[in-house]
Amino acid sequence: MKLASYKDGSRDGQLVVVSRDLTMAHYATGIASKLQQVLDDWGFLAPQLQDLYDTLNNGKARHAFPFDPAQCMAPLPRAYQWADGSAYINHVELVRKARESEVPGSFYKDPLMYQGGSDDFIGPCDDVICPSEEYGIDFEAEVAVITGDVPMQSTPEQALEGIRLVMLANDVSLRNLIPNELAKGFGFFQSKPATAFSPVAVTLDELGDTWDQGRVNLTMQSTWNGRKVGMCDAGPEMTFHFGQLIAHICKTRNVRAGSIIGSGTVSNKGVEAKGKTDWPKGYSCIAEKRAIETIQDGKPSTEFMKFGDTIRIEMKGKDGELVFGAIDQKIVAAAALK
Amino acid sequence: MKLASYKDGSRDGQLVVVSRDLTMAHYATGIASKLQQVLDDWGFLAPQLQDLYDTLNNGKARHAFPFDPAQCMAPLPRAYQWADGSAYINHVELVRKARESEVPGSFYKDPLMYQGGSDDFIGPCDDVICPSEEYGIDFEAEVAVITGDVPMQSTPEQALEGIRLVMLANDVSLRNLIPNELAKGFGFFQSKPATAFSPVAVTLDELGDTWDQGRVNLTMQSTWNGRKVGMCDAGPEMTFHFGQLIAHICKTRNVRAGSIIGSGTVSNKGVEAKGKTDWPKGYSCIAEKRAIETIQDGKPSTEFMKFGDTIRIEMKGKDGELVFGAIDQKIVAAAALK
Repeated sequence: MKLASYKDGSRDGQLVVVSRDLTMAHYATGIASKLQQVLDDWGFLAPQLQDLYDTLNNGKARHAFPFDPAQCMAPLPRAYQWADGSAYINHVELVRKARESEVPGSFYKDPLMYQGGSDDFIGPCDDVICPSEEYGIDFEAEVAVITGDVPMQSTPEQALEGIRLVMLANDVSLRNLIPNELAKGFGFFQSKPATAFSPVAVTLDELGDTWDQGRVNLTMQSTWNGRKVGMCDAGPEMTFHFGQLIAHICKTRNVRAGSIIGSGTVSNKGVEAKGKTDWPKGYSCIAEKRAIETIQDGKPSTEFMKFGDTIRIEMKGKDGELVFGAIDQKIVAAAALK
Repeated sequence: MKLASYKDGSRDGQLVVVSRDLTMAHYATGIASKLQQVLDDWGFLAPQLQDLYDTLNNGKARHAFPFDPAQCMAPLPRAYQWADGSAYINHVELVRKARESEVPGSFYKDPLMYQGGSDDFIGPCDDVICPSEEYGIDFEAEVAVITGDVPMQSTPEQALEGIRLVMLANDVSLRNLIPNELAKGFGFFQSKPATAFSPVAVTLDELGDTWDQGRVNLTMQSTWNGRKVGMCDAGPEMTFHFGQLIAHICKTRNVRAGSIIGSGTVSNKGVEAKGKTDWPKGYSCIAEKRAIETIQDGKPSTEFMKFGDTIRIEMKGKDGELVFGAIDQKIVAAAALK
């Protein structure tokens, strides 16, 4: 099934069930008002939502209404955990190569992850509010999952069993603020503003066999200012699958229901041809494009995002239809709000 | 007023109002069932809780019952944010000096903070569950605040206005897992298991003039295996006050209601006497004691905590009575649970 949280002026929004083709929606009232409630009591509530979803897909839901992604908050408008990995090691390799540093051998066994702010997510069509273009505004197209309870010391395979929902994320990053925070070793605050998520979060069965043991074998499409810049395979090159990322966190602690785990920027290896390397699938964040330019030309030529820029992130199923709806945002100056 | 969350088998517990002297409690039923609800709607709900608190203190609450800290979850059993500072720069100086590295000049202007896991806090008397003693189990006695909404780009002074409640924290750390995570630059997961908080969280008026512009001028008392090891002044040597810590986070994002901000290990400068330095106030974490030993003797002699060890963290008001109740925990092997 597909679930969304509609804006209603409250902090958590109103849970809606969305039809498979994303055309119609229905309030989940009577079952649960908030998505966190469902995650807290999945075994009891999910089957009831599934029934409503089936009725909606059959065109028999009495109070169905046209689904509007612009009315969506993030599926979980706030969460008890947002832990973002850097699971595509190719991305790390490119960025490191551009600054002429080695990737430590441990990075291939021990996932790189950071704990993100989860108190203030934004919806798929909400503006990205930023105080300054000088911060180096970048998008990051990612896959993310929402978990149930995963006990301390679960194996990657056990952790896979704890995954409830899948969605897309735009993990907005302020690149020029990262070096200072990275040097401190304690992770990110100022360089990671509010993250946006796709209109709907979907259960694993919606992905069919494109859900492959903790990886999504579909193409992450990123469109910047109307230009398609990324058509990256999200599946095979994901070095650490979601079960491994979750197991990394729960080595010494429990992961509780409603935790969101991100994949990091989807990234594919370059292709060698006629003695040079090319990246025909493009990129899922500008920093990676700039790393490639630096490797090829000695310096980056693509600039980061400006106020007024747009970014659209989406993923189509085997049938060519959007699975999660699209993240579709504009960059807006914080000052413009005042 | 003083607020706690009683264990009732649910994820968020049941909100109770606790008398000033911590002897009696009363369910807040009819006003709010969970603390997060109150933080979401503070202006409307806090005055109602204050009325109940006054009635309870006057001995006139009809359904009051004896308060038992062992029945407490953390005041917020799970939260949308847990951001922990390292606000006592003396602690950073000692640890760095022990490993013969300099404190960067920026650390005196730019607070060191990490984003912690907030999906699974533990209560003040709950066991600290750890898979292995080899991880280097340590306590960290800290002051923490819970905020309301603090908008992006608030000043430190504006951020102070957003503080709703104060409590104590035991930010348990696994010291031997820290170097690897620190080297990666992305912050902590495995080295920071579940954090514990004091039985009650209190409003600022409960601190009277010991609440001094974002600092608490009281003594943090730490008792390890029944031996008093720390009597540290929490106030004057807090390099960054809570308003500064919050403003650091909200430079590029909003901080939303229910965010918990920690001070980091309370730490005091050594005292010079007869050509040598002594630390008469003791320590609020073992890592600091070991740093002092390393500076003095070339190597640490105090070992980290073992299974069965106990740690008690508390703070007394000017009247000599406990303000927040006591964190009082035992270290227990994860294997012992299976």
